[in-house]
Amino acid sequence: MSAPAQKGVVYLVGAGPGDPDLLTLRAARLLATADVVLHDDLVPDAVVTMCNPQALVTSVGKRCGRPRITQVAIHDLMIDSARRNLSVVRLKSGDPMVFGRAAEELAALRAAGILAEVVPGVSAVFAAGAALQLPLTDRRAASKLILITGKHAEIKSSGDTVPVWQGTLPADATLAIYMPGRDLLAVANDLRAAGVPQDMPCVAISCAATPRQQAAASMLSAFSRLEPGPAPLLVLVGRAMQPMLALNKDRKRAHAQQVVDAAVACL
Amino acid sequence: MSAPAQKGVVYLVGAGPGDPDLLTLRAARLLATADVVLHDDLVPDAVVTMCNPQALVTSVGKRCGRPRITQVAIHDLMIDSARRNLSVVRLKSGDPMVFGRAAEELAALRAAGILAEVVPGVSAVFAAGAALQLPLTDRRAASKLILITGKHAEIKSSGDTVPVWQGTLPADATLAIYMPGRDLLAVANDLRAAGVPQDMPCVAISCAATPRQQAAASMLSAFSRLEPGPAPLLVLVGRAMQPMLALNKDRKRAHAQQVVDAAVACL
Repeated sequence: MSAPAQKGVVYLVGAGPGDPDLLTLRAARLLATADVVLHDDLVPDAVVTMCNPQALVTSVGKRCGRPRITQVAIHDLMIDSARRNLSVVRLKSGDPMVFGRAAEELAALRAAGILAEVVPGVSAVFAAGAALQLPLTDRRAASKLILITGKHAEIKSSGDTVPVWQGTLPADATLAIYMPGRDLLAVANDLRAAGVPQDMPCVAISCAATPRQQAAASMLSAFSRLEPGPAPLLVLVGRAMQPMLALNKDRKRAHAQQVVDAAVACL
Repeated sequence: MSAPAQKGVVYLVGAGPGDPDLLTLRAARLLATADVVLHDDLVPDAVVTMCNPQALVTSVGKRCGRPRITQVAIHDLMIDSARRNLSVVRLKSGDPMVFGRAAEELAALRAAGILAEVVPGVSAVFAAGAALQLPLTDRRAASKLILITGKHAEIKSSGDTVPVWQGTLPADATLAIYMPGRDLLAVANDLRAAGVPQDMPCVAISCAATPRQQAAASMLSAFSRLEPGPAPLLVLVGRAMQPMLALNKDRKRAHAQQVVDAAVACL
C-alpha cells in the first residue's frame, strides 16, 4: 500500500468518470487519508464518501447555482490548507491534466512554494469506450483519438466562439467532444464544417460509468435529432463507432434515434 | 468492494502505465480473483505479482524474441479458458481500448458467445502528464489532445508507411505519439511535414510512471539529437510542453539536450 497523504502537500487527483471502482489505488489511498478534500461538482457522492470521515470536504464546483467560487479562491484554499500543515486532495473528475485548470493550479502552488503531486485518472472517453464495449481505435478504421472540448470559447480570452475543429477532421480519427453542451445541432454543424460526411457514426453518452448512464447513436445526418441525456455528456464521432449503428440495422432504422441503456458492469 | 471475477467471463482490463498503484480498484479486484491472466509484455512484474497466487498467468506478448504468438492464438486461449468455466483477465498496458487489438478480441469473444467486461485504465499520456507535472491542455496554449501511434503502417494492410499526421497539425494541440520507435529523426521529419514549427517543444518520456522513468525535451529543431530512453517510449509535442524547455533557460541551452530524471512520487 502506498504512502498516506503527507502534511503540507497538495495532491491533484483524478477521480475518474464517476464509478468509485474506477478510482486508482493511489487516489483511493489519498482520499482515505487526506485532511482536506476540495472537489469539483462533477465528482459524485459515491466517490466523496470514500474520503477520510474526519476530513474537511468542500465542493469547489462552479455550478448548481451556488455562489460562484473563483479560481483564485480555490488556489487560496489549497495554499492556506497546506500552510496550516494539512494534507490536501484537489479532486477533479476524470484525469486532472485535461480540460481542467491544472496549469493554473500547479503554477499557483509552485509560486507559493507548496509541494504538489499529480495522480492521473481514467478520463471520460475511456470510461465510455469500456462501458459501451466500443474500441476507440481500430487498425481497420481509426488510428487516432482526438480529445477536444465543446466549450468553444475556451482558448479565446475575447469570449468569441470558435468551431470545435478548424480545417478538415482526419477521416481515420475518433473524436471525443467533452462538455459539448445541450445543442447537438450546433455540434453537428461544426462537424459538417470540419468535413465530416453525413453518414459518419456519432454517439452521445451521458453519465458514462454511472448507474444513470445512457447512450444514443445515429449518423451525423440525424444527430441533431437525438435526445442528449443529462450532463456530464460526451460526444464520440468516427468510423470506430459503427457498431453502435449496427445495433439498429435489423430494425431498418439506421437514421433514427437509438437509445441504449448500457448496463454498468461494476455497479 | 466490487464483485470478484466471474466464471466463464473474459475481462479486458487496463493495467495502467506500469505503477501498480495506478491500477483501478476494479482492475486490482479482478486480478486478485481471476483464474487465468493473459498479459502483454509491457505489463511489468510489479503488476503481475498482484494476481491471485493460484492463477495461471501467461505472457501473450509478441516481443522479447519469444516464438511469436498469433492474435488468433490469444483469442483461442481466452475462449477455451472461458468455456472451461474459468474467469479470465486479458490484461493490457494502459487503457485496453486504444492502440491494442480490443476490436478484434471483443469480436472474437462475441462470435464465440462469451460474456465480456471492459475495465478502462490510465493511458500512458496521462501518466506522463502527471509524472512530469505537465498539464496536457491549457486554456492559454492547448485546447486539444491528440493520441496517435508511431506505428506508421498500422492502418494500411499493404504495409506501406504513412506519416504520423497527414495535413497540418492544429497549432493549439498537444500531440502524444505512442510507440514512436527509436528513430527520432523520422518522427521529427514527420512533424515538420505536418507543419510543426522548429521552435515547438517536444518531449520524449521513457518508462513513464515506473522507477526507470526518464524524460528529455528540446525544440523540434534539436529533437532528433535527443537520446530516447528505453521502451516504452512516448513523445509529446505542443506549446503546453513549454515548461519542460523553460527548465533549461537559465543554462542558456534552450536548444540542447535536457534530461530530467523525474521522481516517481508513489514508488
